[in-house]
Amino acid sequence: MKNKKSELQEQRSVILLSGGLDSAVTLYFAKKYGYDLTALIFSYGQRHEKETECAKKLADMVGINKYLLEITLPWSESALINRSIEVPYGRDLEAKDIPLTYVPGRNIIFLSYAFSLAETIKAKRIFIGAHVEDYSGYPDCRPEFINSFEDACNKGISRNGIEISAPLLDKNKKDIITLGNELNVPFENTWSCYSGTDKPCMKCDSCRFRQQGFEALGLVDPLIRDSK
Amino acid sequence: MKNKKSELQEQRSVILLSGGLDSAVTLYFAKKYGYDLTALIFSYGQRHEKETECAKKLADMVGINKYLLEITLPWSESALINRSIEVPYGRDLEAKDIPLTYVPGRNIIFLSYAFSLAETIKAKRIFIGAHVEDYSGYPDCRPEFINSFEDACNKGISRNGIEISAPLLDKNKKDIITLGNELNVPFENTWSCYSGTDKPCMKCDSCRFRQQGFEALGLVDPLIRDSK
Repeated sequence: MKNKKSELQEQRSVILLSGGLDSAVTLYFAKKYGYDLTALIFSYGQRHEKETECAKKLADMVGINKYLLEITLPWSESALINRSIEVPYGRDLEAKDIPLTYVPGRNIIFLSYAFSLAETIKAKRIFIGAHVEDYSGYPDCRPEFINSFEDACNKGISRNGIEISAPLLDKNKKDIITLGNELNVPFENTWSCYSGTDKPCMKCDSCRFRQQGFEALGLVDPLIRDSK
Repeated sequence: MKNKKSELQEQRSVILLSGGLDSAVTLYFAKKYGYDLTALIFSYGQRHEKETECAKKLADMVGINKYLLEITLPWSESALINRSIEVPYGRDLEAKDIPLTYVPGRNIIFLSYAFSLAETIKAKRIFIGAHVEDYSGYPDCRPEFINSFEDACNKGISRNGIEISAPLLDKNKKDIITLGNELNVPFENTWSCYSGTDKPCMKCDSCRFRQQGFEALGLVDPLIRDSK
């Protein structure tokens, strides 16, 4: 079979954009380095649309093309999707077990679509905001998964040579916020809270990781400041 | 992280069911060997719904649970989805290049959803009807892709140990039809043609592979016989 690797465009990239803090920093990082980006945003039945609204706005602010895909995982028992399961509060942030908010195969599915899009538009790279604190709990954020998945998918497409870039992989929330500040990321246009309340609940894992990061830097999250 | 491999149920399986001849034979094969099956059927913007109608009917005939997912690949330039591109006729069936009907990442996406479902319902196995004639043209039907993808996905889920079974992988269409006859597969309830005409067009690659198989066995495809 003909290897179409050479058809890939070096700077053209797909970015998985959730609207959370991590993917926003990844977006501004990739933009700074001159990548020609197309955003892929998923609405997958989350409890609220705040995250995807932020994602769309971020893509528009940076001025890149975007695809919004609505997908369903009707079998999911995750607290992020299934409204009969309560979002867990007060979990040990160092815990190594799988949180109730885990959506089986979420990044596997997101990255699969990203490979389909990247191959079609001849993009050389896929950006994802996965990082070290996530993979204590979410197996699809671990580097061994990401490396192995990149390898596997390149065997299943015709224009092989597509790379997954996870520039935040070894960073914690504090490092990510520091980088975001350097890049002038509009944190007020990001959403991390698992709940869809007007203001972040400040109790779920995602809120707590975020606030730990800002507090460690002696900063106030603009999302909290502005909502007061 | 806790390995939840032991939670997987040995006989419980997910089957990717397209409504084509190959997945129908895979279904009857898995059923014969006593697997407890849940079908996963995709509507991905094909030119017609005949295939998915067949898939739903086959699942009901065999009496298994089914999920029908509607997904979109708005960037696709495949002749199977994009109606502005004509389905190609008269292609050399031995050709090694990628056909116009190739949908980038299709099996990558289908298998990703299958892993999400399998992990959720604690299924040990995913059945797929991929086979040798497909992977001359479709890279996501190649054994090296399937093996590598199984390995990668197990690194990205919490209940690892899920296997991909492709029982037709090394068979050609003739072998598959022979097996299907032994298993009493109702070929009249399968659809292979890329077009959505009342009768199979008999000109597209998929029709031609199918008819070559029946003819090599001195048989008449019941889909043709019944439509005459």
